[in-house]
Amino acid sequence: MKAAFYAGDRTITLGECVPVDPQAGQVQIQISHCGVCGTDLHIFHGAMDKRVKMPAVLGHEMSGTISALGSGVADWALGDAVTVMPLDPCGNCAACHAGHSHICQNLNFMGIDSPGAFQSHWTVPTRTLLRLPPNLSLTHGALIEPLAVACHDVRLGAIQPGENVVVIGGGPIGMLVALVAQHAGGKVIVSEINPFRVEMAGKLGLEVVNPKEVNLLDLVNERTNGAGADAVFEVSGSQAGADVMTDLLRTRGRIIVVAIFAAKPNIDLFRFFWRELRLLGARVYEREDFARAIEIAAAGNLPLDQLITEVTSLDHLGEGFEKMDGGGACMKILMDCQA
Amino acid sequence: MKAAFYAGDRTITLGECVPVDPQAGQVQIQISHCGVCGTDLHIFHGAMDKRVKMPAVLGHEMSGTISALGSGVADWALGDAVTVMPLDPCGNCAACHAGHSHICQNLNFMGIDSPGAFQSHWTVPTRTLLRLPPNLSLTHGALIEPLAVACHDVRLGAIQPGENVVVIGGGPIGMLVALVAQHAGGKVIVSEINPFRVEMAGKLGLEVVNPKEVNLLDLVNERTNGAGADAVFEVSGSQAGADVMTDLLRTRGRIIVVAIFAAKPNIDLFRFFWRELRLLGARVYEREDFARAIEIAAAGNLPLDQLITEVTSLDHLGEGFEKMDGGGACMKILMDCQA
Repeated sequence: MKAAFYAGDRTITLGECVPVDPQAGQVQIQISHCGVCGTDLHIFHGAMDKRVKMPAVLGHEMSGTISALGSGVADWALGDAVTVMPLDPCGNCAACHAGHSHICQNLNFMGIDSPGAFQSHWTVPTRTLLRLPPNLSLTHGALIEPLAVACHDVRLGAIQPGENVVVIGGGPIGMLVALVAQHAGGKVIVSEINPFRVEMAGKLGLEVVNPKEVNLLDLVNERTNGAGADAVFEVSGSQAGADVMTDLLRTRGRIIVVAIFAAKPNIDLFRFFWRELRLLGARVYEREDFARAIEIAAAGNLPLDQLITEVTSLDHLGEGFEKMDGGGACMKILMDCQA
Repeated sequence: MKAAFYAGDRTITLGECVPVDPQAGQVQIQISHCGVCGTDLHIFHGAMDKRVKMPAVLGHEMSGTISALGSGVADWALGDAVTVMPLDPCGNCAACHAGHSHICQNLNFMGIDSPGAFQSHWTVPTRTLLRLPPNLSLTHGALIEPLAVACHDVRLGAIQPGENVVVIGGGPIGMLVALVAQHAGGKVIVSEINPFRVEMAGKLGLEVVNPKEVNLLDLVNERTNGAGADAVFEVSGSQAGADVMTDLLRTRGRIIVVAIFAAKPNIDLFRFFWRELRLLGARVYEREDFARAIEIAAAGNLPLDQLITEVTSLDHLGEGFEKMDGGGACMKILMDCQA
């Protein structure tokens, strides 16, 4: 019955999980696995201390089984394997009214704004649950949330079979975007400079280019008879990525901004005009993206095992953050929350 | 039988028009009126000397009547009132193959890359012609080309009735975009700092705000109950415009980049991510935009007369450029090419 707490100043402390009895419309989940997200790392660095109430139980990439039911919960049973879409929108803001509740202006992101899943038991509203099918392991179940991000990005990017796609940045989300875009029929090139990630992309069955060694623009123009790529996913958050994204595209090509840009990059708006380019921001996911992520993960066609660098216990969460620092030699680190 | 020539170094010279006999598939037009475009001014400033072959007959915002027919031309008759869509695409590049021939990668923009309409007679391919209806004056006919730009921008921006729209920049194209967006049912605010243009917007029946005097963001948020605008047209080409455009929009709001940005502005890509904003570049027009421009101009609901600051003769083209310099106190200046 453990829980790991972010206590500020790059410190994770281990404590007791105090299970919360589920109320009406809630269930309690015995957490199986919970992955470490880039946002968790950002919090660990202290960048979100104003938003996070310490000591904070983080974690929102999880799988588990239902361990208690609130009153009146009829659609779920003890032992059901589930994941959680960790978004709790207000229902009353302009975004919610416009049907964009996933980017609610008062969003409670569970695991950031309220307690999360780096603990043995977690109580959540049933409306956040999604069922995991029997042919999907609970280990893979903890990858559904980041996979849903990728499904959202690829859906909004409207990738069609045969399209030429470039993914700039091969971190965990970039790799998943590349895999989902490839699964959708796209001809995908990942652009990445970190040698560990370059090697990882190859293991995942992705074509990868180090733009410090290969001229990416020439390569894309060669592949497309000078037309340019159909779509670019910007997942690096860098000025270098923002520079090349506009150069890579064909007329009316699409840029999908997935990365969180801390600074405002210079953007070639002339190129947008000249080639009638399009750009769209994509954030988290909607319920259909979660459902799609479960569907393609359960079908077994994605190399999800390759993405998991390590499975460890909650005692080692702090070490996990340290390993991830500076885009280190790891992809996904999962916590076994019962170990 | 006059022609005005751009001779480099802010110099316009007046000379003789040598009418060109139309070949098969061509007609000769007796030019009635031709407007001065911002691009012409740009050329006058010397900024496009590498592209323009001097001495150059500029001019591409025109109206006229057919004065001679090439062999085999069956669909047109002498005296027909016409305007020209001045785009002559190569038909063979990636853009043309993708159906985007209006932004052909080897585009011959007539009046820039080849002789234009600041002359008494002009010979063009019949495929560039559009018929002007009897209820549209030839003076207004010379406004069809810039109006087609606005129709293209509003069409790509997919403005729906009742939507809140901000147009940043009230030059000739900004005003036309605002008028067409309002005609499409948008609730339009023009943002402009030049006092002449502020006054002009009012005369055109547009709501206008000087963002140095009124907090545009507060105003838009007030009007939309905090949601933000549905669409923003960036027609200023300024960093100030690029700064505010992302702040003004609701979740999944659209930015249409109409301006030519000479420098690469800083853009708040985080805001694109956070609100899932969209941005698209829009350049010139397609044939349906020209047809739409003729339709709405002929219907008589736009205050086109108000947009015309002056009608003068080709002898005064150089003076026209000087008047337009620095966004001076004028909107459209038309040349009467028979005067």
